[in-house]
Amino acid sequence: MRFLVAPSGFKESLDAVAVADAIAAGIHRVVPGAVVDKVPLVDGGEGSAAALAEATGGTLVPALVTGPTGDQVPSHFALLGGPGPRTAVVEMAACAGLRLVPKDHRDPTTTTTYGVGELIKAALDLGVDHVLIGCGDSGTSDGGAGALQALGAHVLDAHGREIPRGGAALARARTLDLSEVDPRLDKVDITVACNPHNVLTGPRGVARVFGPQKGATPPQVDQLAAALDNWANLLGDVHTIPGGGASGGLGAGLHALGATLVPRFDVILDHSDLDARLPHADLVITAEGAIDAQTPHGKVPAEVARRAKRHGKPVIAMAGTIGADARVNHDVGIDAYTSIIAAPVALDTAIATAACLLTDATERTLRLVLVGAALTR
Amino acid sequence: MRFLVAPSGFKESLDAVAVADAIAAGIHRVVPGAVVDKVPLVDGGEGSAAALAEATGGTLVPALVTGPTGDQVPSHFALLGGPGPRTAVVEMAACAGLRLVPKDHRDPTTTTTYGVGELIKAALDLGVDHVLIGCGDSGTSDGGAGALQALGAHVLDAHGREIPRGGAALARARTLDLSEVDPRLDKVDITVACNPHNVLTGPRGVARVFGPQKGATPPQVDQLAAALDNWANLLGDVHTIPGGGASGGLGAGLHALGATLVPRFDVILDHSDLDARLPHADLVITAEGAIDAQTPHGKVPAEVARRAKRHGKPVIAMAGTIGADARVNHDVGIDAYTSIIAAPVALDTAIATAACLLTDATERTLRLVLVGAALTR
Repeated sequence: MRFLVAPSGFKESLDAVAVADAIAAGIHRVVPGAVVDKVPLVDGGEGSAAALAEATGGTLVPALVTGPTGDQVPSHFALLGGPGPRTAVVEMAACAGLRLVPKDHRDPTTTTTYGVGELIKAALDLGVDHVLIGCGDSGTSDGGAGALQALGAHVLDAHGREIPRGGAALARARTLDLSEVDPRLDKVDITVACNPHNVLTGPRGVARVFGPQKGATPPQVDQLAAALDNWANLLGDVHTIPGGGASGGLGAGLHALGATLVPRFDVILDHSDLDARLPHADLVITAEGAIDAQTPHGKVPAEVARRAKRHGKPVIAMAGTIGADARVNHDVGIDAYTSIIAAPVALDTAIATAACLLTDATERTLRLVLVGAALTR
Repeated sequence: MRFLVAPSGFKESLDAVAVADAIAAGIHRVVPGAVVDKVPLVDGGEGSAAALAEATGGTLVPALVTGPTGDQVPSHFALLGGPGPRTAVVEMAACAGLRLVPKDHRDPTTTTTYGVGELIKAALDLGVDHVLIGCGDSGTSDGGAGALQALGAHVLDAHGREIPRGGAALARARTLDLSEVDPRLDKVDITVACNPHNVLTGPRGVARVFGPQKGATPPQVDQLAAALDNWANLLGDVHTIPGGGASGGLGAGLHALGATLVPRFDVILDHSDLDARLPHADLVITAEGAIDAQTPHGKVPAEVARRAKRHGKPVIAMAGTIGADARVNHDVGIDAYTSIIAAPVALDTAIATAACLLTDATERTLRLVLVGAALTR
């Protein structure tokens, strides 16, 4: 029996490689001779650069850049291995992620993506042909203005002065001057891997949907929404382009530099060979920290299921939390899902023991599958 | 597809009927045309008299008797319906159960089974041919001495005085005088439905295994163990007879009156028709609050699995808690088990929402089974 194990990481708990290993261990307990093809997946967020470097035999390049709060932070980007154009992966979470903002200082009206621009410049210094920007897990809502400024753009107020960093200041932006942008960008493809469901403005815009989890108070959400509206007018027709709201509007900002916004899995899964490996699987197992009503909107398990179904493969999803209305996931091709939790337990304990829970739950799950297989004999 | 749903109740949460209904609801979500044969099971403990009365079309007879702490408590016994000898079911938990002992007064050195004897007398008053005693969930450790005294036996100390109620006083018992026992007992069969793994004395004796959960301190455990040793010497060769330790030694005490100690499921399942219904099932689903290393030692899911396997039927067990080393249950015929828990959650919340959790978990479980069924096509 051949298994394809294609999970996401479990946020704050296990990276995708560890999740795949835990699932594989559970499979081998029940089907000792199983062939398990592990394809740990990333979504562009935290850990994606490192995972893609490893998956392609590339390297991780360290860099010291401006963090979201303005302090210098140690960061990195990936140089992918393999054939094709020389590609750098800049993971925005590695220089502007929410995790880099101290919990008691979370204020997305002031945090900046300046470090993203610096990482892109560092990649240009190495002569890459292509820069892939991974979005997700951001701590910023500056519409990518900081990244643009780091690359030489000027964002000026009504008096012709450069606006300070952060999303709130975008309310005062009157001019976007791209005349001094790094000229090397003309010869490089920039692709932003976005969740296409994220848009910049309006009721489903980034300030209202993601502002609160980045630490914005209700008045700050209104302030950011208005500031990003003004910024969208300067950038051109980007208010609701798919992915324009990715990472606090970084997608829309980079779009102004000629970057292409692409659904994240269309580019990221190219590096994983998922589509080529699916035809060989009898059963696909995917996983994420939670399976809920949001999963079909651009999360790893739903994307794996959609692709698996093109090959007619059955899909099971494992999760720490099964949320309300998770049943919508059956519509995107997840045939069955299950929780790794085996008893009433505190969240902290579950996170600390997630690998064991996942292996045990995989064992239980496969035994249920085998009951079904025996039924038809 | 035909399902046999044969669960236990979930202690402090759902009775067996409610568990069976919740599982059936989950089945119908996935297999709308399913035939579901519900056989809610009891083990002789709390709720058993009511469940057996209902299952056989019998009645519940109220009675006011002596509770475990000596106060009068409203209690009941069942008169079973159906053919055969006229049978009363006396559930010891209904007059001497742990639930009847206030949590801050739990002291098994003083609690008594006197009410059990009173309920037996009340059943004799109605002219029954057979008394079935259900054990389990007891709050006593008096070796059944109280029940014997209520039925006319005398338990005397070295000075010929009746010993007071409770397990500790058994240390002073020197004579068991059965000359004045109710003569109607000669014409009635008394069957005690026991967990045969429970014995009266020794390292696996009732004081050491169950004393602490009834509220005994370590010195009280030693005191009870010594007292029950003395009591066993008076009763005859009952130290380690199977079931002699049932309900704090009630089994051994009633054995001295000529009662037959029988493995509980051998008698209780007779009233449920489980064996007659098993051949018609495609899949058996059982359940209990916990599935763990203790389950094979006389718990409902293991007994259901053993019987199902005589007919070659697959068995799935649902539980709130999957304990450590639950894997031993595969050896008794439980092919797969799963938890009803869908996310990190507090025990109180899980108990309060158990019916919903169980229905949702049954749905998830059957979808996994169907994945397996489709694999072999």
